[in-house]
Amino acid sequence: MTVRLYLALLHYPVLNKHGEEIASAITNLDLHDIARATTTYGLCGYYVVTPLEDQRELATTLIGHWQTGYGATYNPQRGQAFEQVRLVAHLTDVMAEITHRENDRRPITIATTARQHETAVSFASVRDALAEGWPHLLLLGTAWGLAPRLLADADHVLEPVWGPTPYNHLSVRSAAAIMLDRLLGTCIDSNGKRSN
Amino acid sequence: MTVRLYLALLHYPVLNKHGEEIASAITNLDLHDIARATTTYGLCGYYVVTPLEDQRELATTLIGHWQTGYGATYNPQRGQAFEQVRLVAHLTDVMAEITHRENDRRPITIATTARQHETAVSFASVRDALAEGWPHLLLLGTAWGLAPRLLADADHVLEPVWGPTPYNHLSVRSAAAIMLDRLLGTCIDSNGKRSN
Repeated sequence: MTVRLYLALLHYPVLNKHGEEIASAITNLDLHDIARATTTYGLCGYYVVTPLEDQRELATTLIGHWQTGYGATYNPQRGQAFEQVRLVAHLTDVMAEITHRENDRRPITIATTARQHETAVSFASVRDALAEGWPHLLLLGTAWGLAPRLLADADHVLEPVWGPTPYNHLSVRSAAAIMLDRLLGTCIDSNGKRSN
Repeated sequence: MTVRLYLALLHYPVLNKHGEEIASAITNLDLHDIARATTTYGLCGYYVVTPLEDQRELATTLIGHWQTGYGATYNPQRGQAFEQVRLVAHLTDVMAEITHRENDRRPITIATTARQHETAVSFASVRDALAEGWPHLLLLGTAWGLAPRLLADADHVLEPVWGPTPYNHLSVRSAAAIMLDRLLGTCIDSNGKRSN
């Protein structure tokens, strides 16, 4: 069974450091790093979501440089990574497009957060669910993270990424890479045995 | 036994796209993202290595903003991540400083590459070696990766990070995050069982 996983990076509604809802600005390296990671891990699509039209236009120009401009000649692998990036205004657009692409199968949404969440699901359970083949959509937030109403609306909330310390302020780029590796990468258990 | 792992991000000698040795420029988000990841995973130090003095000065200024400037008030967690960053000129300086900090224990060096390497060691074996407590130093290269002479001189070369596709052009920021998670993070096997 083929895994059908999509990723959406949301710039609204996300929180600022005071816990207020804002629309954040697109960060150039969020486009690059996460597109390279989603391509490495075989995702079906990477959606960059912002209601700000000028931000979508700016990102489209940046991506165009690597796909058809000088960048396409300079580094063809970068253009390849950007092939699956879509700039869209709202999460509802993402859901509609994926449902269409998946022949009317609505993706199961999995919101992410760096905070503990009462009913969080484990990486292992999502990994198992993905293996069953139904499309899933991983939601990541920029700035200080997804607004609580998005966590409440999602089908599931994923457990946070923790290392062995109490510090867990990873960049969204690093968190995305680690999550994809935990969900889709080769995993090594304590005996050196590999799964996948 | 406490894990004693250090990370060095090298800007020389690294390769450009033509396979020639160069000194690359420091990227601001390499400082931020990798400092946040090394702090999350409990590393003992993060060395940013470049022979270019003006580049070390620039990075010191950037970091100072988050440690003692306005950034320290705006986002104290960022200053905390930068506490373990050191700007140094050469890998030999890194080796000398760590050996001193570790009471004359010279760290075992582990070079990384995105390419297949004949005698590469697995993540599992490095994970086991770390658990024994001897200091280790993980070497990552910017641009198109570490020069071959660094791979030849290192005690070990780590296997590349692969997802389930033939594409493996991750950013050094994403690769660092995934490597730290594989070496030090919680690992979930196919039965949902966790190690660490």
